[in-house]
Amino acid sequence: MTAPTPSPDGGEVIETRLSRVDGLAGELVIGGYRVEELAPQATFEEVAFLLWQGRLPDAGELESLHSRLAAGCVLPEASLELLGRAAAARMPVMDALRLGVDSLGLTLTADSADEALAARLVAATPAIVAAYWRLLQGQAPVIAPPELSHAAAYLFQIFGAAPRPEAARGLETYLNSVVDHGLNASTYTARVIASTRSDMVSAVVGALGALKGPLHGGAPGPAFDMVFDIIEKANDSGRPLPDEAEAWLRQAVAAGNRIMGFGHRVYKVRDPRADVLGAAAELLYRGSDGQSFYRQAQTIEDAAVRVLGEMKPGRNLKTNVEFYTALLLHGVGLPTELFTPTFAVARVAGWTAHILEQMRFGRLIRPLEKYVGEDGRRWVALAER
Amino acid sequence: MTAPTPSPDGGEVIETRLSRVDGLAGELVIGGYRVEELAPQATFEEVAFLLWQGRLPDAGELESLHSRLAAGCVLPEASLELLGRAAAARMPVMDALRLGVDSLGLTLTADSADEALAARLVAATPAIVAAYWRLLQGQAPVIAPPELSHAAAYLFQIFGAAPRPEAARGLETYLNSVVDHGLNASTYTARVIASTRSDMVSAVVGALGALKGPLHGGAPGPAFDMVFDIIEKANDSGRPLPDEAEAWLRQAVAAGNRIMGFGHRVYKVRDPRADVLGAAAELLYRGSDGQSFYRQAQTIEDAAVRVLGEMKPGRNLKTNVEFYTALLLHGVGLPTELFTPTFAVARVAGWTAHILEQMRFGRLIRPLEKYVGEDGRRWVALAER
Repeated sequence: MTAPTPSPDGGEVIETRLSRVDGLAGELVIGGYRVEELAPQATFEEVAFLLWQGRLPDAGELESLHSRLAAGCVLPEASLELLGRAAAARMPVMDALRLGVDSLGLTLTADSADEALAARLVAATPAIVAAYWRLLQGQAPVIAPPELSHAAAYLFQIFGAAPRPEAARGLETYLNSVVDHGLNASTYTARVIASTRSDMVSAVVGALGALKGPLHGGAPGPAFDMVFDIIEKANDSGRPLPDEAEAWLRQAVAAGNRIMGFGHRVYKVRDPRADVLGAAAELLYRGSDGQSFYRQAQTIEDAAVRVLGEMKPGRNLKTNVEFYTALLLHGVGLPTELFTPTFAVARVAGWTAHILEQMRFGRLIRPLEKYVGEDGRRWVALAER
Repeated sequence: MTAPTPSPDGGEVIETRLSRVDGLAGELVIGGYRVEELAPQATFEEVAFLLWQGRLPDAGELESLHSRLAAGCVLPEASLELLGRAAAARMPVMDALRLGVDSLGLTLTADSADEALAARLVAATPAIVAAYWRLLQGQAPVIAPPELSHAAAYLFQIFGAAPRPEAARGLETYLNSVVDHGLNASTYTARVIASTRSDMVSAVVGALGALKGPLHGGAPGPAFDMVFDIIEKANDSGRPLPDEAEAWLRQAVAAGNRIMGFGHRVYKVRDPRADVLGAAAELLYRGSDGQSFYRQAQTIEDAAVRVLGEMKPGRNLKTNVEFYTALLLHGVGLPTELFTPTFAVARVAGWTAHILEQMRFGRLIRPLEKYVGEDGRRWVALAER
């Protein structure tokens, strides 16, 4: 790892050893492993360790991290009270999550920047999402049994009961797939903040603020509204689903609406995470109550790819990670309001790894800028304006 | 205003009409006016309006903004309670400010991005700093009379009494001088967050997290510790101050210590804000009780410039804005713990203007990145590691 390379025109290239995104080749490497290799096999704890340490843990290290995460998901009283107040104000979940993480500064020493604090933040993020969700429903927060995996504990904290193993594994594969993705806006925010030698809480709070933006993490919900809408319309009209889907999509594209869940800014070929999540969804729904829904979603996906290919030729609008995320998280039982917060539950491990990397190897980040405003104005007193 | 220009290697140049920093020429232009022209003459309200609207306000517009700011400095009960809790935990002021601004999301609709919300944030920032400072001292927060200027109201809210006009003017010149400074780390953080179409509260909270870093806003305090230390040592030793200063500085430079308050990363010649703040300090201390302290600080400054010029030749270590900031804010009566928070009180006007500019004209910011990590690793089961 070397210092950042200054680019020829004065900006800086941020170097990272955490993940490699190749949009043209459709490749994503996380900590040296292709996402297809890593995500379905690893536990989330292993992936977090990999990002922080640059290698997979042995059994002892894994057990130690597991204990740390299990302890860290017990939230301080001050944070729970604040979440209760946020619930009373019906604050959106991402805002409450940002405020909840921010409030951790009340009880922990934020000025250390090490893996213990990173683990604390990774443990607290799902705990805050889950506690807040229960408070919004008028339910008391619950603490997961310490033997549960990180992914299973998150679901326990939401639903108050241990999840099916297939659901925990499905969620875990999702968390692993989206844990890190190069210098996206939230990760970059965390690094810019960390580059001032600020603290990890500040950097994660900033990243959460970026993730909630609709151009970033805000997409997974809407990607699936279409699926529900088309199924409902087909049920109402009695038309076969493929026909209803095709008609719905043609009308939407003709009206100039963007079809959420298809296409990606970076990947010009298929997003490698889509395959991983698609396979995980297949496993999750197989033999379950949701299997017929899964078939319906696939029918709608096929129609969308066909209609987009025909009406937007050359745009390569493949099914993207948001579509499969919605399919998978819906299958796990999560409401759409928790899709973006669950994205944060994954990404916080990547953010903390980037913060540690930035603090260890980086320097103050300053972008390229160009002034395009007025110049040479002279002061005019108020009375003469 | 045009869309951002893609740089040749794929990164983006951020365009702004808000401020122009020319480090080689030693020039700073804010909203078209040189800082020397604008800062000593304008009210802070005029400068905030200039940044948001691109021109100075007329009398009616100024009155309207003034009313909005006066109303906005009354904090919601939920935020005050949270600040009380933070004070009980002895949270550092910048952390409490970040948490306090974050908590505004409990009571306002953050998803609008307009000048009304910008004014709310500009009004709330000094109110939070002042309320928190009083709570830390065991005093109840106070609300300033609505006729006071923004700068005077801030001092009223801290001290519970109207400031001398010279103090309010001194503070106002400081606030104007540092209100905006191109794409520094906190401003850039705000823009990256805003570039996802997130909300203004998230973006300002992120910026506050960056500002607290010692490589960014954390500097004003230490710049002045030296002054106090040298004066104290001269008092103890009975040596003339110039001799004590010279000896102190020579020893510190020889020991490899960085002398805070001298030199700047961007300005290779004199920082233009230093002149403005120096002149403001001169005005503030003239004929006041602090005049002899002012002379002592000048003596130490002269010695520092001389010793650094001799021992670090060619480095151009001129007195920087942090030194004069410390001199000016000390003269206004502010404790060093409030120097960085007062920087935030100024900069929040710049941040909100950048957020509005980014949301109106910008697109998703993604930096240049380079993967320097492992590749092609194959999964190894836990038992075989």
